[in-house]
Amino acid sequence: MAKEKVCLAYSGGLDTSCILAWLIEKGYDVVCFMADVGQEEDFEAAKAKALKIGAVACYVEDLRREFIEELCFPAVQCNAIYENVYLLGTSLARPVIARSQIKVAQKEGCVAVSHGCTGKGNDQVRFELAFYALQPSIKVIAPWRLPEFYERFAGRNDLLDYAEKAGIPVSSTKSKPWSMDENLAHCSYEAGILEDPDVTAPSDMWKLTVDPLKAPDTPEDFTLVFEKGLPKKLITSKGKTITDAVELFLEANAIARRHGVGRIDIVENRFIGLKSRGCYETPGLTCLRSAHIDLEGLVLDREVRALRDQFVTFNYAKILYNGLYFSPEREFLEESIVASQKNVNGQVRCRAYKGSFIVLGRSSETEKLYDASESSMDEIGAFSPDATTGFIAVQAIRLKKYGEAKAEKGERL
Amino acid sequence: MAKEKVCLAYSGGLDTSCILAWLIEKGYDVVCFMADVGQEEDFEAAKAKALKIGAVACYVEDLRREFIEELCFPAVQCNAIYENVYLLGTSLARPVIARSQIKVAQKEGCVAVSHGCTGKGNDQVRFELAFYALQPSIKVIAPWRLPEFYERFAGRNDLLDYAEKAGIPVSSTKSKPWSMDENLAHCSYEAGILEDPDVTAPSDMWKLTVDPLKAPDTPEDFTLVFEKGLPKKLITSKGKTITDAVELFLEANAIARRHGVGRIDIVENRFIGLKSRGCYETPGLTCLRSAHIDLEGLVLDREVRALRDQFVTFNYAKILYNGLYFSPEREFLEESIVASQKNVNGQVRCRAYKGSFIVLGRSSETEKLYDASESSMDEIGAFSPDATTGFIAVQAIRLKKYGEAKAEKGERL
Amino acid sequence: MAKEKVCLAYSGGLDTSCILAWLIEKGYDVVCFMADVGQEEDFEAAKAKALKIGAVACYVEDLRREFIEELCFPAVQCNAIYENVYLLGTSLARPVIARSQIKVAQKEGCVAVSHGCTGKGNDQVRFELAFYALQPSIKVIAPWRLPEFYERFAGRNDLLDYAEKAGIPVSSTKSKPWSMDENLAHCSYEAGILEDPDVTAPSDMWKLTVDPLKAPDTPEDFTLVFEKGLPKKLITSKGKTITDAVELFLEANAIARRHGVGRIDIVENRFIGLKSRGCYETPGLTCLRSAHIDLEGLVLDREVRALRDQFVTFNYAKILYNGLYFSPEREFLEESIVASQKNVNGQVRCRAYKGSFIVLGRSSETEKLYDASESSMDEIGAFSPDATTGFIAVQAIRLKKYGEAKAEKGERL
Amino acid sequence: MAKEKVCLAYSGGLDTSCILAWLIEKGYDVVCFMADVGQEEDFEAAKAKALKIGAVACYVEDLRREFIEELCFPAVQCNAIYENVYLLGTSLARPVIARSQIKVAQKEGCVAVSHGCTGKGNDQVRFELAFYALQPSIKVIAPWRLPEFYERFAGRNDLLDYAEKAGIPVSSTKSKPWSMDENLAHCSYEAGILEDPDVTAPSDMWKLTVDPLKAPDTPEDFTLVFEKGLPKKLITSKGKTITDAVELFLEANAIARRHGVGRIDIVENRFIGLKSRGCYETPGLTCLRSAHIDLEGLVLDREVRALRDQFVTFNYAKILYNGLYFSPEREFLEESIVASQKNVNGQVRCRAYKGSFIVLGRSSETEKLYDASESSMDEIGAFSPDATTGFIAVQAIRLKKYGEAKAEKGERL
Repeated sequence: MAKEKVCLAYSGGLDTSCILAWLIEKGYDVVCFMADVGQEEDFEAAKAKALKIGAVACYVEDLRREFIEELCFPAVQCNAIYENVYLLGTSLARPVIARSQIKVAQKEGCVAVSHGCTGKGNDQVRFELAFYALQPSIKVIAPWRLPEFYERFAGRNDLLDYAEKAGIPVSSTKSKPWSMDENLAHCSYEAGILEDPDVTAPSDMWKLTVDPLKAPDTPEDFTLVFEKGLPKKLITSKGKTITDAVELFLEANAIARRHGVGRIDIVENRFIGLKSRGCYETPGLTCLRSAHIDLEGLVLDREVRALRDQFVTFNYAKILYNGLYFSPEREFLEESIVASQKNVNGQVRCRAYKGSFIVLGRSSETEKLYDASESSMDEIGAFSPDATTGFIAVQAIRLKKYGEAKAEKGERL
Repeated sequence: MAKEKVCLAYSGGLDTSCILAWLIEKGYDVVCFMADVGQEEDFEAAKAKALKIGAVACYVEDLRREFIEELCFPAVQCNAIYENVYLLGTSLARPVIARSQIKVAQKEGCVAVSHGCTGKGNDQVRFELAFYALQPSIKVIAPWRLPEFYERFAGRNDLLDYAEKAGIPVSSTKSKPWSMDENLAHCSYEAGILEDPDVTAPSDMWKLTVDPLKAPDTPEDFTLVFEKGLPKKLITSKGKTITDAVELFLEANAIARRHGVGRIDIVENRFIGLKSRGCYETPGLTCLRSAHIDLEGLVLDREVRALRDQFVTFNYAKILYNGLYFSPEREFLEESIVASQKNVNGQVRCRAYKGSFIVLGRSSETEKLYDASESSMDEIGAFSPDATTGFIAVQAIRLKKYGEAKAEKGERL
Repeated sequence: MAKEKVCLAYSGGLDTSCILAWLIEKGYDVVCFMADVGQEEDFEAAKAKALKIGAVACYVEDLRREFIEELCFPAVQCNAIYENVYLLGTSLARPVIARSQIKVAQKEGCVAVSHGCTGKGNDQVRFELAFYALQPSIKVIAPWRLPEFYERFAGRNDLLDYAEKAGIPVSSTKSKPWSMDENLAHCSYEAGILEDPDVTAPSDMWKLTVDPLKAPDTPEDFTLVFEKGLPKKLITSKGKTITDAVELFLEANAIARRHGVGRIDIVENRFIGLKSRGCYETPGLTCLRSAHIDLEGLVLDREVRALRDQFVTFNYAKILYNGLYFSPEREFLEESIVASQKNVNGQVRCRAYKGSFIVLGRSSETEKLYDASESSMDEIGAFSPDATTGFIAVQAIRLKKYGEAKAEKGERL
Repeated sequence: MAKEKVCLAYSGGLDTSCILAWLIEKGYDVVCFMADVGQEEDFEAAKAKALKIGAVACYVEDLRREFIEELCFPAVQCNAIYENVYLLGTSLARPVIARSQIKVAQKEGCVAVSHGCTGKGNDQVRFELAFYALQPSIKVIAPWRLPEFYERFAGRNDLLDYAEKAGIPVSSTKSKPWSMDENLAHCSYEAGILEDPDVTAPSDMWKLTVDPLKAPDTPEDFTLVFEKGLPKKLITSKGKTITDAVELFLEANAIARRHGVGRIDIVENRFIGLKSRGCYETPGLTCLRSAHIDLEGLVLDREVRALRDQFVTFNYAKILYNGLYFSPEREFLEESIVASQKNVNGQVRCRAYKGSFIVLGRSSETEKLYDASESSMDEIGAFSPDATTGFIAVQAIRLKKYGEAKAEKGERL
């Protein structure tokens, strides 16, 4: 009888290499899957390693464009942020990776998918909820949640021993005292020495961005142009105009990285109910999101903004963080995002400097909600100032009743 | 018959000096009122000027402590922010000013209160809604909304002519091409050249904070200690500990001002439905709020935080911005804020540098929701990793149904 | 010079007849406008009266279909309700009336529109906000807010005197001790004896519905079929199938009216800040809305429902109530409603009986989210019961921390 | 060595009797626990049965007062409702039961608690989340989720066989084709023939309420008095006044039961993601909640109500439904409820008739927000009608901009 096939999310590292060998040991044919979402990685070397260990095939899929266009850009459109601080860099990549892995699994006729996520994190949830929505019949093998596996490989030495026996090449570089996840949008750092939330992240940890203390003394200015809330053009300080989504994103990254923009440090609440500490750098996305927020001030109606902020932004971020991208509620919210962004057209002049993103000015050729002469304190404009007297009088009806009731009850205001 | 008395919010400037003279001309006895909310001002000179013009009395009330303790601190507790950017510096001062003015008006037996706010701004609304709640029977004289007044004083020259005739001393300093409002928490700049939202604020406009480009090359670290979400201690880099609310706030201001922290530039939506552009610097409050947000990550329950963010923070900011401080809804929300902050106890190590506020670490002696060993990826901890399999399986029930329905309808996920 | 033209919303009653005469007296040419939104009215007689008084033209526009299709049906789709009780019958009609009146005004070249609404109600706001959005340059003449008018016509006798002089025919029927507003969706009663909120509405007040105490002893059953949340078919107890939107609505009305369904009595909060008491009967809409809510239980995803309930339903109702139909926020929310209703397909078996609407059962041929065998307590089904153990264990992580913290602080749970 | 002790939630029925015997078979000493939350039950017979089967002890705890005062009354205060329809009758009882069971377990030194809930329902979650919060170290034995148990007892016959062998007396009454849960607030019916959502509940199923078709032809009137949103007095049609919380609740039940008030039928979304169909009768609570909603119209500020509705009511219901009563978020919300109810003082005159609850009138001696003369259409009152012109003009600023933008883009309104 033919062996059952499993599609493993493979990274080339020690953990997933051991899982690969272990799955083969368990009698599976293993198809390895690697997603290129922009992380720095030697995909060819990893592929060679997978095949050497015994994978029957190894796919490397370039998902950078769909990651930017389908995930990062809607996040910009709704100013997505989790718990006031985190820009969801990891969360945004998971859906495209899971979707691609399922495609490979289907193409290869796999009965199961597997991954190397730990049993306490968010990523296992994000991947698996996506798998189940994308193919409800799929089986998932999560070795780090199987006692048979996690009891056998209780420490790093057990993995090293196993690697040696299984002929898995192990890099001699000493592993860092934290774990990382990188993609085009960000790099995350957690675990290890960072588990003490009062330990300041060491300055040599940050990979993507220059230390703000060592960033250039001269600010760098650029312009971002949005259409329907989507970044459409980046014009550099040298006048170069970039319009391709991926290139635009990479250029925003390059500028922000040079100036140390987008570092954060947070204790956040995981979906499974644990608090965890993470450090993140999200250079370009920080700029795109902040510029988008600024432009909305100029062109978006007050009430649409308020509804979008309270309802769409909050929930979109929560849903993405919790791994519920492939869900009816995300689909629903995304249609609401689009509905909110019709008039978000215009440009923002931006500056990056020593860790800060600064807005220099904004304008729109097509949108006219902002009306300098009408809001001017120096002109009477379209409405009569005495109208405001009536406005206040009507607003005060309710408050006078309140004041009277408080007075009657002898309560101080 | 005795003249009727009016209590005028007086600043010493050209506008309110002319209003003072005009009110006297209209047959009122005028009691001038000045609120010290921490702005840079020569109160004695202004008082002398008021009396010289003909005020029957002039009060200068020190409201700094109640401004910090009753307004700024609750704003910190709920991370108040308007339209993602504005920290409400002006809005926070209005309630204490209005309350004090009504007290003076009552003490002096005034039938009306008056102010020099324009007819298009937020402040007229904030003051008057407060007046009406505090004393529902009060009359309000808002000259800039009275045709009799604003048609007579159509331009600055009309005011200068009137001042000359009325013997009002006019300072020879040229007025700035923008208007300002200052208090202990912030300084705002709007109107004039700032009405073009694409004009970058000139670097000599900013009054409170050092230009980030000229800020020290060396960061400055300090520690903030919170109890029940309130700032209780600031420990400077030199080890000095400050516990008094006003002094603590002033020290936070001093640090942030030295390092250019807290400048923003925004197009915002006024209560009356106009968009307007404002530049604000809010040095200390920016640090206190950001540190508070960070500490909540460590000590506040996820669900309480989510409810507070979505409802209390959003609405508290909107209510304050719109001038509805003295209202049943603010009272209601403030009790909810207190209920949310019971466990927000701990300290945050902070850094100010070239315009940025940075968190270095945080800790709490009393709160234990964060549990390094439980969230550690390297330890099994209190719950079995296979529990997560069940968690995911249950979460997936609904998503599998969704995936099946999409597949049946032939829609791509 | 030609006279300026005004388009007056005319009802044929004493008030608007006097306003018509008064506008003519003021030197306007007056075009009368009547909207047929399904109210019981002798339009031809009213038209003849308008022309007799001196209107230069009188339009009667049939708006019933657009009222049902563009307003009532979206309200059903999002289960719109104001302050838990009021189904917005009056609010829903205002936008179509205002839009039609502006069309007539534009066709006739009117410089202004006029209406007979009082100065304390919601309707003046609803009409005028719609007018201004539809034609920002339009002038509005609201006589009941003009001192010149309301001081002259301080009581009903003043109107009667004026009518006599102006040759306005006055009906001899004694006016009722409350005011009414009727359309296809509802009839409202307020003011007069109803101003005491403790006075029970007299049983002869209710116009549309049979007194539940006198309703038939035999219930009447019918079936409602929805597609994308819209009522598409009504099947009567006799097996007659109705598919036209207006006819379906009328049939739902007829059934509900026979059985006394849809009466309410409420003290509500008007947009201008006053509380007022209203009695409403909304026969058919009550049934359609309740059946729609029931069907959503069967076919709508839990999370989409929760988001829609908390944000769309609440705000759509508030926006409509406040007269903000022609606004960016209504447009935004309505696109969200549509996005939420894709799968709301199925039928509900309904019963009307002595004032109650009762659901007998519901089903859907196309939607499969409900799965009897999976939710059955008697079958194991697709997921293993032990998965729930993991689900609970993970949910409990956060709560155990909470329990531990409470215990440590000696607080009782 | 002494046996370990388990505290079992015991009902006297077949399932929990078999679980009792099985736990003894597994080597535990079993303490039985029965909660009296007002259900119709022969507690003495059940206790005798438990002891006969071999329980080492059997507690019957009267929790009726705390159920009413601590759970049902806060639910009334915030008008709690789940998915627009369900009044949470079962959910409200679970916290008091779990708390009492843990107390017994602690008193008896039990290492674990056990229950007979199935593996697909809400109740297992509600009980266990409560257990874990109340005593984080407790172990839970949920036999219906243990393969060892549920595979052995796959059908009712397996339980009957086991009962016979274990000497468990089995009642000869045929079990009903649905399952029920009863307490002072409600009775629920689900499963069995009700699993087809299109099957109408048989008329002999309903236990608490009279069939509305057979209810008296004469309505029954009564008055409910609230203080701070809590029911404080019920005055019957015969003038009897009841003030004790439990007696008041029982009287409201008695009236509503006589008149068939409070039946509902719903397809709801369980916490675990399944949809399920339930029929519920909640006689007294339906009346108390509806009367409370009505009174709020008279006495509660508009904005407090809106915030409470959107924020507290929605989430309190969701939290209770999902079994998160012992949680930081419930504690937080409950403090917000109290803060919202300070002025909810007054009385509502009520009517029960043929399945309907009807409000006849309402009044308050202490609260004055409703002001008949001010809201009267016939009086000018405290504010000038022309103020509304200004109010509308200011509200229109934003909408005119919207109208202009739509016109410029050629879009129809």
